[in-house]
Amino acid sequence: MKLWQKDYTPNKRIETFVVGKDYLLDQSLVRFDCLGSIAHIKGLLDIGILTQDEFCTLKKGLLEIIELDTEGRFIIQFNDEDVHTKIENHLVEKLGDVAKKIHTGRSRNDQVLTAIRLYAKERFLAIEEKAISLSLSFLTFAEKYLMIPMPGRTHLQKAMPSSLGLWAGAFSESTLDNLIIMDAGYELYDQSPLGSGASYGIPLPLNRELTAELLSFSKVQRNTLYANNSRGKFEVSLLMSLLGVTFDISKFSNDLILFLLPEFNYFELPEEFFLGSSIMPQKKNPSFLEMIRAKSNTFISLVFQIVSIVNNLPSGYNQDFQETKEPFIKGLDMAEELIEIASLIIENLKPNEASLRKACTPEIFAQDKAIELVKEGMPFREAYKKIAKEIDKVKTSEIEEALKKRSHIGGTGNLGLPILREEILNKQKEIVQRKENWKKRLSKLIIPK
Amino acid sequence: MKLWQKDYTPNKRIETFVVGKDYLLDQSLVRFDCLGSIAHIKGLLDIGILTQDEFCTLKKGLLEIIELDTEGRFIIQFNDEDVHTKIENHLVEKLGDVAKKIHTGRSRNDQVLTAIRLYAKERFLAIEEKAISLSLSFLTFAEKYLMIPMPGRTHLQKAMPSSLGLWAGAFSESTLDNLIIMDAGYELYDQSPLGSGASYGIPLPLNRELTAELLSFSKVQRNTLYANNSRGKFEVSLLMSLLGVTFDISKFSNDLILFLLPEFNYFELPEEFFLGSSIMPQKKNPSFLEMIRAKSNTFISLVFQIVSIVNNLPSGYNQDFQETKEPFIKGLDMAEELIEIASLIIENLKPNEASLRKACTPEIFAQDKAIELVKEGMPFREAYKKIAKEIDKVKTSEIEEALKKRSHIGGTGNLGLPILREEILNKQKEIVQRKENWKKRLSKLIIPK
Amino acid sequence: MKLWQKDYTPNKRIETFVVGKDYLLDQSLVRFDCLGSIAHIKGLLDIGILTQDEFCTLKKGLLEIIELDTEGRFIIQFNDEDVHTKIENHLVEKLGDVAKKIHTGRSRNDQVLTAIRLYAKERFLAIEEKAISLSLSFLTFAEKYLMIPMPGRTHLQKAMPSSLGLWAGAFSESTLDNLIIMDAGYELYDQSPLGSGASYGIPLPLNRELTAELLSFSKVQRNTLYANNSRGKFEVSLLMSLLGVTFDISKFSNDLILFLLPEFNYFELPEEFFLGSSIMPQKKNPSFLEMIRAKSNTFISLVFQIVSIVNNLPSGYNQDFQETKEPFIKGLDMAEELIEIASLIIENLKPNEASLRKACTPEIFAQDKAIELVKEGMPFREAYKKIAKEIDKVKTSEIEEALKKRSHIGGTGNLGLPILREEILNKQKEIVQRKENWKKRLSKLIIPK
Amino acid sequence: MKLWQKDYTPNKRIETFVVGKDYLLDQSLVRFDCLGSIAHIKGLLDIGILTQDEFCTLKKGLLEIIELDTEGRFIIQFNDEDVHTKIENHLVEKLGDVAKKIHTGRSRNDQVLTAIRLYAKERFLAIEEKAISLSLSFLTFAEKYLMIPMPGRTHLQKAMPSSLGLWAGAFSESTLDNLIIMDAGYELYDQSPLGSGASYGIPLPLNRELTAELLSFSKVQRNTLYANNSRGKFEVSLLMSLLGVTFDISKFSNDLILFLLPEFNYFELPEEFFLGSSIMPQKKNPSFLEMIRAKSNTFISLVFQIVSIVNNLPSGYNQDFQETKEPFIKGLDMAEELIEIASLIIENLKPNEASLRKACTPEIFAQDKAIELVKEGMPFREAYKKIAKEIDKVKTSEIEEALKKRSHIGGTGNLGLPILREEILNKQKEIVQRKENWKKRLSKLIIPK
Repeated sequence: MKLWQKDYTPNKRIETFVVGKDYLLDQSLVRFDCLGSIAHIKGLLDIGILTQDEFCTLKKGLLEIIELDTEGRFIIQFNDEDVHTKIENHLVEKLGDVAKKIHTGRSRNDQVLTAIRLYAKERFLAIEEKAISLSLSFLTFAEKYLMIPMPGRTHLQKAMPSSLGLWAGAFSESTLDNLIIMDAGYELYDQSPLGSGASYGIPLPLNRELTAELLSFSKVQRNTLYANNSRGKFEVSLLMSLLGVTFDISKFSNDLILFLLPEFNYFELPEEFFLGSSIMPQKKNPSFLEMIRAKSNTFISLVFQIVSIVNNLPSGYNQDFQETKEPFIKGLDMAEELIEIASLIIENLKPNEASLRKACTPEIFAQDKAIELVKEGMPFREAYKKIAKEIDKVKTSEIEEALKKRSHIGGTGNLGLPILREEILNKQKEIVQRKENWKKRLSKLIIPK
Repeated sequence: MKLWQKDYTPNKRIETFVVGKDYLLDQSLVRFDCLGSIAHIKGLLDIGILTQDEFCTLKKGLLEIIELDTEGRFIIQFNDEDVHTKIENHLVEKLGDVAKKIHTGRSRNDQVLTAIRLYAKERFLAIEEKAISLSLSFLTFAEKYLMIPMPGRTHLQKAMPSSLGLWAGAFSESTLDNLIIMDAGYELYDQSPLGSGASYGIPLPLNRELTAELLSFSKVQRNTLYANNSRGKFEVSLLMSLLGVTFDISKFSNDLILFLLPEFNYFELPEEFFLGSSIMPQKKNPSFLEMIRAKSNTFISLVFQIVSIVNNLPSGYNQDFQETKEPFIKGLDMAEELIEIASLIIENLKPNEASLRKACTPEIFAQDKAIELVKEGMPFREAYKKIAKEIDKVKTSEIEEALKKRSHIGGTGNLGLPILREEILNKQKEIVQRKENWKKRLSKLIIPK
Repeated sequence: MKLWQKDYTPNKRIETFVVGKDYLLDQSLVRFDCLGSIAHIKGLLDIGILTQDEFCTLKKGLLEIIELDTEGRFIIQFNDEDVHTKIENHLVEKLGDVAKKIHTGRSRNDQVLTAIRLYAKERFLAIEEKAISLSLSFLTFAEKYLMIPMPGRTHLQKAMPSSLGLWAGAFSESTLDNLIIMDAGYELYDQSPLGSGASYGIPLPLNRELTAELLSFSKVQRNTLYANNSRGKFEVSLLMSLLGVTFDISKFSNDLILFLLPEFNYFELPEEFFLGSSIMPQKKNPSFLEMIRAKSNTFISLVFQIVSIVNNLPSGYNQDFQETKEPFIKGLDMAEELIEIASLIIENLKPNEASLRKACTPEIFAQDKAIELVKEGMPFREAYKKIAKEIDKVKTSEIEEALKKRSHIGGTGNLGLPILREEILNKQKEIVQRKENWKKRLSKLIIPK
Repeated sequence: MKLWQKDYTPNKRIETFVVGKDYLLDQSLVRFDCLGSIAHIKGLLDIGILTQDEFCTLKKGLLEIIELDTEGRFIIQFNDEDVHTKIENHLVEKLGDVAKKIHTGRSRNDQVLTAIRLYAKERFLAIEEKAISLSLSFLTFAEKYLMIPMPGRTHLQKAMPSSLGLWAGAFSESTLDNLIIMDAGYELYDQSPLGSGASYGIPLPLNRELTAELLSFSKVQRNTLYANNSRGKFEVSLLMSLLGVTFDISKFSNDLILFLLPEFNYFELPEEFFLGSSIMPQKKNPSFLEMIRAKSNTFISLVFQIVSIVNNLPSGYNQDFQETKEPFIKGLDMAEELIEIASLIIENLKPNEASLRKACTPEIFAQDKAIELVKEGMPFREAYKKIAKEIDKVKTSEIEEALKKRSHIGGTGNLGLPILREEILNKQKEIVQRKENWKKRLSKLIIPK
């Protein structure tokens, strides 16, 4: 029985079309919808809509659902339509009439908004934590192989002397910037939409500050229409904030696809990472790197999917929002997986120093030679031209020497990795702290009394 | 046991990442992979690699798998990696050593290419058939309500006298153009990649013309590298060819979202199509129309996903192609579903003639008035200015009169629906014929002897 | 003469292809490239590569170029290739040999990175300022027409009592969230890439902290490879941060396209905003609203253009980055223009109170009636069912009453607009302050001494 | 003076926003709009709306504009709004009152539709011709270096023996498939929208078959509403049909970026194709290949820009269509340029046979060895395992031998290039013929009498 069902039976084909896989996706929202409801009934108690007894009965019912869900025994079926209906129907069946009061002052729009906010916050905190770990893994690699030389490339052509420290350090430092955007995305989600109703509020004096506090939100998202209007925008903002990370990981895999080729042979990875061919006995395919490349594109298309769906909609709730649930959840899954796989790779990556050193052929020192002439007083553009004419005569410099000479901040001779480590550790502390607070608040909410 | 497995065990995390849901998607390819293999072993028999006995044994084994699959009893698990491995392993288990010969002269790239081509052809023929039906339904609506007036809109503003015949006829005629592009997409798929190996052919004199013929392909896709290079391109081309249909359906739903509003009230649909609100007892939401709008955007993002994945790849097979299987299959599903739902809607749509007639307010006849002045000899631009100044004085014309006056080809008074019906029926015949041939050829292939 | 030109002449067709319109786009970077160069030579002076005299000569030359550019007299032609070449060649011509020193320790990659950062910061500060103004305009509208009723819609169907205060307030409040993401985007740009060379630093002890300080950057972007790797990512992040704003404006235009139709007639806008038809004398087309809708989609495609170009690139500078310059600049232009047009609209928008009031038909009070029954003790779900059955009997409530009853935070009766105004004004102060600092610092840099 | 202008002056800011760069883009449509108008007035003559004299005067005026445009002396300014207004105003000024009749029975929607169809047909025929040429250039390369060996790659890893014939032949054969889709796109454009008015036809008995015939269209696009609805769809279809070509060219550039690296050194291109570095004297950057890669992504985003703009629009003309003009024209330009550059590259590409031969290391013959065992009777899977264990013992085969052994259709030993040449030449003949007909018909239209 749908919550809204009246005296006609919905057309089955239409219903299948509209509901789609929504009921399956809702499975991940069970716990969060229950948490939202616990806060809501606490609010109803506060304004006298529920008695203490009713509140306790309902809360107990909701806590039981959370437990069933944890044990994988609260399964939403197609006929349940969605998580909210399933929960209300379940409660009515278990608790009788009192359960019919739980939807007072709510709307499914409000419920799904709240549940998704909570779900996304929890998922996102875990992703931020893993992004930090990945950054640390890159840093550790950079520290370990700091001065191992490597030809720096522009236009993919060998360009200048570089180092593994610079290469891996770039990915590490990048993550801190990514987290700036991610934190901003998180900040949007840290607002409570609870109490916004179907977009237009509720004719009851709901205590929205109380419920926000209970659910560990930093503030109330005030305007009730805006709460609903923001749904797609927030989803886009959160997923987009992860593009920095997926860009980095895609770049990392592109580098490795090249550098693992026998023609380069710069690195090695454990044999167990590679897949074989059904027909060519000799093959060891870096399928995982290609899949990173491919999935980084899939990730982009998920963002684009949500953007396309939510742009050009009028104000207020529109059914289209339901269609963003799948790409949103999938996007979070995919970003998390890409981070995990990238971590696994960098932590197992071994450089072939000999190959790397051999690749540092003389011509990459051409600019160094030009700068030497500059130091002797020749204008740079003339030095450049002189060296360009005699490019065949450039002999291999002492490579370590060249790396050290880049002694300005961020150069191979002065990468500032200790400062970077400190910055990352500070950021890590901040995120762990945020996560602790989140856990503490929610655990209070589920104390059964 | 993977087909390529050697003396090391693949890293579980990496494997999960690479395989993903591929094994689930492969479930729909079982029958087609078996068909491809039957043709292939027939080819091996032809060039003396298999004996008649071996061929018969293997064919029997493959036909059994097709039967198991039909009964839902041939389930691919994660550990099977993919459909090809599962089938080869199954045959080895059932038939012993002879089954180890089945992969002679093949590659999984070749297998998946062939299986997807067959799968897509069958699906696409069904989709084309449904698109034609939809076109007929729009046509029937147009014929039935041919001269019921309706204000024609530009910039969504009321502009000129129009009719339901013109409005619905536009969707019907559009489908014929869509089929031009769809047929071109189909033509690409009507080429046999079988025998292309891992991209570089096979050191055996495979009879590719024979196998193409057996599998109901119109021709061999010659260059073996091109066969593999074309994978992503073909998928993009086929899905893109459906954009015309999804555009139309999206436009249709946008029109209806508006015209079903009480402010317009142009049409009615059965109550059972509408979903309710959990909080507002009066609501009847046209969720299915909003879902069409949303899903038409999802469809676009699926196309974009494949495009992003396959652009910028080097020649030859790349693992990235695996990542396009999901959006490709999903895209076909979605296009088919959108067509079905649109058919359901137009077949149940009823006009409210009174509302439509009332909406034809006088100002939409302004151009007609100007043209009348033109007929009396006034240059159009002056007539336009004269009417513009006296716009308030324009009185409602006899609307049927106005509709009939648009007597040129394609005007409300001369829509040419009988010709359109003939064109559609011819197209329908052609597609049905194509489908019959396809069925006949494949059914020959599975005669168990 | 190109900076890199040697003893062969580039192929003209290839050159035209590669340079494209880049030289035209570079016109907007002239001032910023000069500013970057002034800071750089100050740095070279600091480490003894230039003498005080050389520095002064070069600075004077650069200041003259800034002046020429201001007067529109420093025009980059196709043969100049790009702004950097044009400037160096101009200086060599004017100043002779000393100018050949200006490229010491630089690279065009470094130059363009620095110039674009400065350009984007200045543009972005202006955009943030305008976004705040737009927010204030929406707020003013909300305050002015606070309690004018309007039917709130979900699924575009009339749903509940709402108000112009809630509707316009939603757009105003939304902007504050948009600015959270925008500020994060800005923070990325507030790092100095100067000194990063071609991606691999410079074999000179450049004082990167000094030059960062001179150019009003908050910090040095350390890792030189990362500085280059980040180029596309930063552009994506900055443009994406504007999606919140363009979403809002698109939603606003979608609402108005509907609400301005005669069937609704909720609002009025000055006649001068509308364009006419060449053929229908009566038409007044809201072309500007349709163009907002269209351009919001163009904006999205610009973001995805950059995303597509920069994803899947290997580390280090790649020529592909040049291709992002156009969509980046165009994106900033477009976002700014959309904000300006939206401001113009909301500032000129007048409600038709009578139409709005009339549209508040009885059924939108159904939920209120149900809640009244709840207050009398009936469980909500039963009240819902009771009202659903008697929906025809619901009579128009006193609408103002209903609006006031939504007395929780963010409801129509308690929108919190005064707090919102304070928050917006605070944000405005912060941005104005940021802009002042930027101006002050840069003006110091161009003191001619 | 706008065609639609009445007694108020449009708001300047709004007008600038709406018109945008449209007037500049319209410059390329001048000739085609005149041609459309010549056909239209011929039609008006036919139905007695114009006298023979009036027709001749107007035609003369239009032919003069075509001439002025050819000489670059018919420049559309911002104040002209668009090409249609400019032309009508110009004629009124030159010819007086008779010119005020030219818009009889037309609408600017109809005009722009017709002009763009004609424009696109002409452009597209040229593009098809160039695509065929590119195909021939690839074929010529394949023929010339038919049996030069090259390691075939899958997953970018060396996989099997291959040849330059196979590699280049793949690009050549691909083009024929691309043309299937392109021809379908062209077919859509080969329908006359002339006479469709503002979407709703004209209250005059226009002779649409006559005008279609005059303008070299194969048929009338009947339904007048559909003619307008189809605008965006057609643009998407035509640009999308070019994706096959841009995919191929992107793949070609990706291959070359890799194969030109010193680590591979498979090919050589003239020095004049490469650009240098402003800082590293030794650099020769393949910027043109990177720009192909980047621009192939830009091309995709142009397609998706149009898709995003036109999806989700209601029936009838919407201003949004104007916003697709720029990406449409830009897309045609870009596809054409990519084809030209790719032709230039393949025509100048020289293989380094020694490097290619050296790269064919023993392990790529592993499958051949396994097949040899198969021929001796060992089941393939066992042969595979045996070779896998002894992979180090595989010795270089006689490579030419191996290439020849792939003797099935499309294998390195049997590429079928002569058949391919014939197919391409037939296609070329067909397109040239189509172009001749087009020219012949239009030239009749502009005979000044």
